[in-house]
Amino acid sequence: MNETIATILKRRSVRAYRPDPVAQPELDLMLRAARHAPTAMNQQPWHFTVIGNPELLRKLEEHCKSAFLESTNEALREIAKQEEFSVFYHAPMLVIISGDPNALAAQYDCTLAMENMLLAATSLGLGSCWTNAVMMYYATEKGKAKFRELGVTFPEGYRPYAAAAFGYPAAEWPETPPKKSECVTLMD
Amino acid sequence: MNETIATILKRRSVRAYRPDPVAQPELDLMLRAARHAPTAMNQQPWHFTVIGNPELLRKLEEHCKSAFLESTNEALREIAKQEEFSVFYHAPMLVIISGDPNALAAQYDCTLAMENMLLAATSLGLGSCWTNAVMMYYATEKGKAKFRELGVTFPEGYRPYAAAAFGYPAAEWPETPPKKSECVTLMD
Repeated sequence: MNETIATILKRRSVRAYRPDPVAQPELDLMLRAARHAPTAMNQQPWHFTVIGNPELLRKLEEHCKSAFLESTNEALREIAKQEEFSVFYHAPMLVIISGDPNALAAQYDCTLAMENMLLAATSLGLGSCWTNAVMMYYATEKGKAKFRELGVTFPEGYRPYAAAAFGYPAAEWPETPPKKSECVTLMD
Repeated sequence: MNETIATILKRRSVRAYRPDPVAQPELDLMLRAARHAPTAMNQQPWHFTVIGNPELLRKLEEHCKSAFLESTNEALREIAKQEEFSVFYHAPMLVIISGDPNALAAQYDCTLAMENMLLAATSLGLGSCWTNAVMMYYATEKGKAKFRELGVTFPEGYRPYAAAAFGYPAAEWPETPPKKSECVTLMD
């Protein structure tokens, strides 16, 4: 098995981070990886917002948590009710990829870019965790207003399509969760 | 730069393929990579349909092309009008990842899985090309009916969220297209 596939199999959602900031050269490589994802008609309709300010992260985390607390999904509500729960798992860095909803396929483009970031991070020994809470919260009027209030803005007309926390893991690398079998149909 | 990041930077949309089928061990690795993508609450709400039958591919390709020909996007219409144009670029294999729309985040889950397949393919020397035409065509009533008629069905209630062609490249590895600069905001 080659190193790329080994990295893909190694990637996990990491939920405990050291407070140390992500080093700039590593962030640069992750962003370069992101921007090499495919986009429909090479539109690259994306913008990368990298939040490393601890105070801003703490505030954003608290607000985004409300998206889980007010979700119609019971499992999300239960998770968010736990006192220690943090949507960004106290990671030192959050990356939000926003996109132009008028592009051909902004959600696809931004999501593919984020997978590249998650894998680049894994290859560099960094942990990562995709977080839907950002998109769920921003989809509400209250959420949009709060982002603006905190100064987290996106290019005109853009909205968040992908978000993930990054940082150095503070615990053992997580085990692989069980995988569904029988999910392939071959039509030869 | 490590091998994983080099693979991410190397991946391109390949638009010319040799007719040789993708070897089973390579397909197996690609599918394993796909199933190691993150999914919301580990739901894995996905199914992988791998089409290698040349006659079926040819028919599907012809029909999916109509999604471009009838698109409201002029650039897509112009591309599809070219006589030699093929939405799957005559690749010997098409993978469709379908998902459960009632899952928490099926489109995200299936898209992240497909990026893993594109990268695993690149690492194995295979070319790949994401194709929106499958989702665009399936979104129409005519398209849904045609998929059923051709015997390309998905688990009950599932629908295609990601599709890509795969195969061994028949031409030089494509150049990197120009990348947008100034698309990062740092909030330290």
